[in-house]
Amino acid sequence: MSADWFRRRFLPGGPLPAPRPPRPRASPVPYRRPRFLRGSGSSPGTADASCRPNARPVRSPVRGRALPWNAGYAEIINAEKSEFNEDQAACGKLCIRRFEFGVEEDQEWLTLCPEEFLTGHYWALFDGHGGPAAAILAANTLHSCLRRQLEAVVEGMVAPQPPMHLSGHCIRPSDSQFVEEKGIRAEDLVVGALESAFQECDEVIGRELEASGQVGGCTALVAVTLQGKLYVANAGDSRAILVRRDEVRPLSSEFTPETERQRIQQLAFLYPELLAGEFTRLEFPRRLKGDDLGQKVLFRDHHMSGWSYKCVEQSDLKYPLIHGQGRQARLLGTLAVSRGLGDHQLKVLDTNIQLKPFLLSVPQVTVLDMDQLEPQEEDIVVMATDGLWDVLSNEQVARLVRSFLPGNREDPHRAKGAVATEDSNIASQNHLRARCSVSVHHGQQQVCLPHPQTQP
Amino acid sequence: MSADWFRRRFLPGGPLPAPRPPRPRASPVPYRRPRFLRGSGSSPGTADASCRPNARPVRSPVRGRALPWNAGYAEIINAEKSEFNEDQAACGKLCIRRFEFGVEEDQEWLTLCPEEFLTGHYWALFDGHGGPAAAILAANTLHSCLRRQLEAVVEGMVAPQPPMHLSGHCIRPSDSQFVEEKGIRAEDLVVGALESAFQECDEVIGRELEASGQVGGCTALVAVTLQGKLYVANAGDSRAILVRRDEVRPLSSEFTPETERQRIQQLAFLYPELLAGEFTRLEFPRRLKGDDLGQKVLFRDHHMSGWSYKCVEQSDLKYPLIHGQGRQARLLGTLAVSRGLGDHQLKVLDTNIQLKPFLLSVPQVTVLDMDQLEPQEEDIVVMATDGLWDVLSNEQVARLVRSFLPGNREDPHRAKGAVATEDSNIASQNHLRARCSVSVHHGQQQVCLPHPQTQP
Repeated sequence: MSADWFRRRFLPGGPLPAPRPPRPRASPVPYRRPRFLRGSGSSPGTADASCRPNARPVRSPVRGRALPWNAGYAEIINAEKSEFNEDQAACGKLCIRRFEFGVEEDQEWLTLCPEEFLTGHYWALFDGHGGPAAAILAANTLHSCLRRQLEAVVEGMVAPQPPMHLSGHCIRPSDSQFVEEKGIRAEDLVVGALESAFQECDEVIGRELEASGQVGGCTALVAVTLQGKLYVANAGDSRAILVRRDEVRPLSSEFTPETERQRIQQLAFLYPELLAGEFTRLEFPRRLKGDDLGQKVLFRDHHMSGWSYKCVEQSDLKYPLIHGQGRQARLLGTLAVSRGLGDHQLKVLDTNIQLKPFLLSVPQVTVLDMDQLEPQEEDIVVMATDGLWDVLSNEQVARLVRSFLPGNREDPHRAKGAVATEDSNIASQNHLRARCSVSVHHGQQQVCLPHPQTQP
Repeated sequence: MSADWFRRRFLPGGPLPAPRPPRPRASPVPYRRPRFLRGSGSSPGTADASCRPNARPVRSPVRGRALPWNAGYAEIINAEKSEFNEDQAACGKLCIRRFEFGVEEDQEWLTLCPEEFLTGHYWALFDGHGGPAAAILAANTLHSCLRRQLEAVVEGMVAPQPPMHLSGHCIRPSDSQFVEEKGIRAEDLVVGALESAFQECDEVIGRELEASGQVGGCTALVAVTLQGKLYVANAGDSRAILVRRDEVRPLSSEFTPETERQRIQQLAFLYPELLAGEFTRLEFPRRLKGDDLGQKVLFRDHHMSGWSYKCVEQSDLKYPLIHGQGRQARLLGTLAVSRGLGDHQLKVLDTNIQLKPFLLSVPQVTVLDMDQLEPQEEDIVVMATDGLWDVLSNEQVARLVRSFLPGNREDPHRAKGAVATEDSNIASQNHLRARCSVSVHHGQQQVCLPHPQTQP
């Protein structure tokens, strides 16, 4: 993606893109639930929840269908917010081909080297909006993008240190010294591969949605285990935490118009054309009205963490680039997240103002060294979309997980049980807290960290 | 500052600025050392250091001249790197006028309200480059800018909660609810005032340097105490730490081309004209040469925290936007810091490529609630330019401070003694570590946190 592309794509008056040959319209992306839910009905999670007439049913994989590492998964059926459940999930084994075997390859050496593949695991949650298509495409595609990106750098990942040149040819003897000075390690290549995979997947989604005439976007939260490390990549407002006996550790940050305010305002400062004169990039505590004109009111601009006062002018009365607070915060009055996949055609209602230039598809990646962590049998990673975190805090989720697991120590599917317990809890809570639950629609997934006795 | 201004100022081919009336050239900014050093000679700090023939002398205020809060200050004379010591310092009491007394003011009320001023303290270090002028202007100006910015919002600072409207008129009854939802507190106004003051000071420096035909820039590290809080504002690579009996707490982060790589690369992505085709925005472990062409080498772009490989093209052989590692990292091959004041006219040697668009004058501000901290008598804040931190770690500085203070508990000027001890240590270390000390030129200052018994 070049600056030229950015301007052509998003700025008015830029040179027109070369005309594309007309492409036959592809069929719409077919709706589906995650593969591992096949055979599972929509059933209330517990007897208690089923007693409540309005409790929302919890779905999880049928007994006997194991997810990698005996992970648990459960989802609450969409609260009739849209026709389809817009959330999706995916998991599976990652097989990264380590070597390209050419004709000149020494066949004897091949048999001496059984580790032809580097293997890992992959879990992903996608929280869709504006239709289920983007989340379905992401669930179908992102793991393939990641595998491709990892295979492109795998030689560097398995070397003692990523070499300056991937070919292994040493152009300059001092190359390894430069790599060392920059502190580049194998895990940086996995982080880079995750970043590139999200971008590649975003491009695929853009092409597919355009071809099928569909719209929509989704957040993406991905956990990958590889070479003794856990990578958590997040673009959006989902969240992953690690629950241990004495600790709750956040593994991701949320990306919303609020948390990324300065980046978004900065872009609007550099390219005010993106707002088409309809929005103000300044933040005020509330939307200003005519009677605020001439008053000195609290405001923040792109370079400010603190607040100051400014005298209100006519242009400050425009609708704010970022408006609202907490869960209500919206980008251009339209979108509640600032990172994710898709949304290539999304515009502000009844305008030509595009949201995509303000969105990032690139995730933030957290790396956890599982050897240094000395994982215990009861350690659990909880990944969930905002539906869970809107109603339960990290500590509340940790308490639920901790209270369920000890009594089910012998059950290899205990993570599944734990996740169903949480969801039942939410399903009944939602019933009690109807106001909060209106937009609660979430998938949720749990992953056991590898204890020697439990790791398959 | 508007986007329009940004483009006119920095992009080629933008509309020409309106011609300015010729301004009589002002006289150059006169050189000086900080006021509180008057009367102090250049003397080696300790007998031990003075025995070494090449030990660099340490300067500190003469005995009897107390800095606010009995702070200590010491500087090592510039190692003949330039004709003048490019570092500057300033400190003093901040008096913020709380009320504008108009003719309609009730005089009786005035006498009932003795707290006409809000008072605080101010300490600042400026590490100059490209000449001493910018640092001198900053030391002369920044505290006035800050006072002005604080006075503009002081009514909001002394209210129980900053009001939506500074006038105090409540336009809408729900205003305070919006302020509360955004979590806006008095300290956010001080942070905002510090951010605005740095920007205002940067503009003053730009005008003054242009008028006097001088050049240069400086970093700025400022500590302010106000209403029971300590604010540390930093733009550049200086550093402040809090040393306590059992803890060393960083109070600032460094801003260099390395730590701000993604911000700088992002701007070059959005406005490639700023590089005039002479630089590449991509980062490689080392500068690429002709024999790297066609190879797959490690690289990072603006959206990447991790690393990946790319096939080297001709354009990748250009000089990198950010080059080098650690202390050697340079922006456009020219500057070692990415935030600070001044440098308005700085260009890459023999080109028209400007550095200013990549520099931020806005500081990052850390807030320390001194009541929550429960300060102890031996707590010390150490502020120093990179000259100190290049040769001593936070822990080493803490050890020096802790070893000096207990034996001097009765001395009200003990912070001054502690700082001289450190500087002597550096002066002699520099002698021993000549390679490291070449560019060591620093001011350094210590501030006692307010213990009830020591606070004046």
